[in-house]
Amino acid sequence: VSTAPVRPSRAIDQGLRERARRVIPNGMYGHLNTSRFADDYPQFLARGEGARVWDVDGREFIDLMCTFGPILLGHAHPEVDAAAAATAARGDVLNCPGPEMVELAEVLVQEVEHADWAMFAKNGSDVTNLSVVVARAHTRRRKVLMARGSYHGIGAWALPPESPGTTIEDHANTVFFGYNDLDSVEAAVLDAGEDDVAAVVCTPHRHDVFIDQEPVDPAFARGVREICDRLGAMLIIDDVRCGARIDLRGGWAAVGVKPDLSAWSKSLANGYPLAGLLGTAPLGEAAAAVTATGSFWYAAAPMAAALTTIRLLKEGDGIGRMRASGIRLQEGLRAQAQAHDMAVRVTGPPQMPLMLFADDPEFARSLAWSGACAAHGVYLHPVHNWFLGTAHDEATIDEVLERTDAAFDVVRERFGTG
Amino acid sequence: VSTAPVRPSRAIDQGLRERARRVIPNGMYGHLNTSRFADDYPQFLARGEGARVWDVDGREFIDLMCTFGPILLGHAHPEVDAAAAATAARGDVLNCPGPEMVELAEVLVQEVEHADWAMFAKNGSDVTNLSVVVARAHTRRRKVLMARGSYHGIGAWALPPESPGTTIEDHANTVFFGYNDLDSVEAAVLDAGEDDVAAVVCTPHRHDVFIDQEPVDPAFARGVREICDRLGAMLIIDDVRCGARIDLRGGWAAVGVKPDLSAWSKSLANGYPLAGLLGTAPLGEAAAAVTATGSFWYAAAPMAAALTTIRLLKEGDGIGRMRASGIRLQEGLRAQAQAHDMAVRVTGPPQMPLMLFADDPEFARSLAWSGACAAHGVYLHPVHNWFLGTAHDEATIDEVLERTDAAFDVVRERFGTG
Repeated sequence: VSTAPVRPSRAIDQGLRERARRVIPNGMYGHLNTSRFADDYPQFLARGEGARVWDVDGREFIDLMCTFGPILLGHAHPEVDAAAAATAARGDVLNCPGPEMVELAEVLVQEVEHADWAMFAKNGSDVTNLSVVVARAHTRRRKVLMARGSYHGIGAWALPPESPGTTIEDHANTVFFGYNDLDSVEAAVLDAGEDDVAAVVCTPHRHDVFIDQEPVDPAFARGVREICDRLGAMLIIDDVRCGARIDLRGGWAAVGVKPDLSAWSKSLANGYPLAGLLGTAPLGEAAAAVTATGSFWYAAAPMAAALTTIRLLKEGDGIGRMRASGIRLQEGLRAQAQAHDMAVRVTGPPQMPLMLFADDPEFARSLAWSGACAAHGVYLHPVHNWFLGTAHDEATIDEVLERTDAAFDVVRERFGTG
Repeated sequence: VSTAPVRPSRAIDQGLRERARRVIPNGMYGHLNTSRFADDYPQFLARGEGARVWDVDGREFIDLMCTFGPILLGHAHPEVDAAAAATAARGDVLNCPGPEMVELAEVLVQEVEHADWAMFAKNGSDVTNLSVVVARAHTRRRKVLMARGSYHGIGAWALPPESPGTTIEDHANTVFFGYNDLDSVEAAVLDAGEDDVAAVVCTPHRHDVFIDQEPVDPAFARGVREICDRLGAMLIIDDVRCGARIDLRGGWAAVGVKPDLSAWSKSLANGYPLAGLLGTAPLGEAAAAVTATGSFWYAAAPMAAALTTIRLLKEGDGIGRMRASGIRLQEGLRAQAQAHDMAVRVTGPPQMPLMLFADDPEFARSLAWSGACAAHGVYLHPVHNWFLGTAHDEATIDEVLERTDAAFDVVRERFGTG
C-alpha cells in the first residue's frame, strides 16, 4: 500500500489563509476557494510552468485544471508571453484599441464558422451576459431559455432563482429546459410565450458541475436550431469553457449547427484576460446599439497573446494532441479503477475529462481520491471537469497515472472496493 | 492666427478603420469609439509613455484621458511594469490566487477608511453590480436608488430604461433621484417602499457625461447616510472613476461619511485590469454567500501592479501633485478663454477636469475645440471628464496650454466670441 510522499511544510499557505480570513470574505470566494476540498490542497499558488504548478510552500503539482480553462498551451508559454510583452512594451491599455483588435477579430471571423463580427471583453460572464442583451435588442423580446444546471456565468438571469442577492425580477425572463431534451425546450417555449423568446442558450456539451458530462445529441442541436428559426429567436452557444480547446470552429460545428451568437473566453489567450462575443451579420446592428464597454476590454496585450495562441494551436495540431493525451488519461483511469475493482464513470471530451465514483452520492470518494491526488502531486478538481492543454504530453500523462494509482489505493483503503 | 501643424499621414489608422468596419460592429463599440469626434482623432493607438500617447501613424499626443482613468502614474511606468512582470514570470493566472491578493486586501483595508474586507474582479461594472448583489443579499430587499444620469457601469439595472436589449424587469428595482437633492432621495424612498430599499448608490461627486461636474454637498452626503441608517439600507460609493486619483481613503472620506460598500477599479493598478469591492464587517457574510467569480479575477500580476501603484502614489504625494497640475490646467484654461473672450465652464476636481462652452447646446464648440486640440497634439474628450496623472508635471501642463491656446483660436474663427 502506497502512502503519501513526505511533503515540505505548508506553513506559508496556512499563514496566508489566516491573514486572508481577516480581509477577504470567508477567506476566499468563488471557484478558486479550496476550503471545501481535502486538506492536501493549497489555497495559494506561486508559480506555473508548462503542465506544472507550485504552491507557495514549493510543493509541485502536475496541473490538470489549467486554471479552469485559460491555460491552453501550458503555463508561462514563452512565445505567447513574448507576444504579449512586445505589445505591452508599446502600449496595452490606451485611449484607443491597438491594431491587434482588428487582426484578432479577422482571425476569429475566419476560424469560427458562424462569425461575421467580434466584440471583446474580459471574462466569460461579460460575453454570456452581452449575448443575451444583443439577442434581446435584435428580437425586441425578453425571454431566454437555458438548460437547468448549466453555468453561464454570474449574471443574475443565469443563476439559480435561490441565489443570494438576486431578485424575482432578475429571474422573471429565464425559462429552464433539460439539456438534450427537445420536448422540454418546446415546453419552455410555451411557458415563455412563442412570441417572446429572444434566445436559447446552450453549452456545446453538458458540462455541469457534480454530474457526468454528456455530449450533445446531434438531433437535439438541430432541433434547437429549428425551434429558433421557427420562432425568430437567437441561438447562443456558450463556448466559454470549450471554445478553442475542443473545436476552434465553434461548439456545434461538429454536428453541423451554426448559432447566431457565441460567447468565448478562458482559453483564447493562454491565460491573458480576454473574452469575445461573436455574431452573424444580421445581429451586427443590435450589437452596435447596446451599451457594452469596460475600462480594460480593449487591452492590446491579451489580443496579441490570443493571436499567437491561436496560431500555435493550429500549427501544432494542438486540439488533436490534447485529444490524444486526454484519451490516454481517460483510458488509463478506467483501467486503474478496474484493476482496483472500483466502479467509476470517466466522461467528457478527452480534453475536458471528469471522473466520478459510481456509488458516491455525497462525493466522499471523489473528495478522498482528489485529496490523495493532491497529496501525490496531481492537481485536479473533485467534481468539476478538468482541463488538459498541449503541455500534457504522453510522459506527463503517464506520470499523472502513476500518481493517481496511489490515490485509488487510498480510496480503496478507506471505502473498500465497488 | 495659428493653424494646425503639418501632420504625418493617417493612412494606417484609416486602413484599420476600414478593416474594422468589416469585422467589428459599427467599426468600434463603447467608450473608445472615436467616430463621433472631430476628424483629427485617431481610432487606433500604438504606444504610450508617461503623459504621451502615439497613434498607429506615429502622431504624438499629450494624453489628458489616461485611458479614461486606468493610467495614474503615467503610461508604461517602469516600476509598476517591473512589479507586474516579476509576478507574471512566476505565475499570473493559476488554479489559486497568489499571495499578492492577501497583501492587496490588507493594504486596501488599511488605506480605505470604511473597508474591513476586499474582493477583486476585473472591471468597474463587475464591482458596481456585485455591490448591489451583496447589499441585496445582506438586506434581503430589492430596490436600489441611484442618481439620474450617473454612470454605474453596464449592468442593466444601472442603464437608462430605454437602453436597447434591456427589459422592464431589469429596471423594475431601480429608482432614480437627483444628485445633491436630498428631497428627491426621500421621494425615491417613498416610491421604492421604505422597507424594500436595499441600497443607495452614489458617485463621490457628480461626473456625468455632457454636463458640468459638481462636488457633493456635504449635507447631501450626510443626509444620504442618515436615510440609509434609518431604513437599514446600504450606502454604496461608486469610486470606480475617482478612487485613488482623488482620495485613497474613499469617495466621501473628505466630508466625513463612510459607506457600507465601495466599488473601485480603473486607476488601482496603473493600467492592469483590476477591480475591487470593499465592504464593512457586517456585510462580509453576504459577500461570502453570493455567486461572484470570474476566470481572470484572481490574476496575481495586476495585484502586484496595484501594490506598487498604491505605494508610489503615497510615497510621492501623487494625489497632491496631480491636484497641483490640475489647478494649473484649470486656471490656465479659464485665463485662455477669457483672453479669447469666450465663455467656458471649467469644472471638476483638478485631477478630473472638464471644460464646456457656455452657449453650446449641441456641443458644436466642444467638438471643434477638442478636434483642434487633437490636431495640435492634445488628446482629451469633448464632453466626458478628463483624467490627469502624476506624469503631468508643470512643464507638460504648460505645453498643453500652448496647444489649447491654438484650439481656442480655431473655435473663435468658426463660432466667434461669447
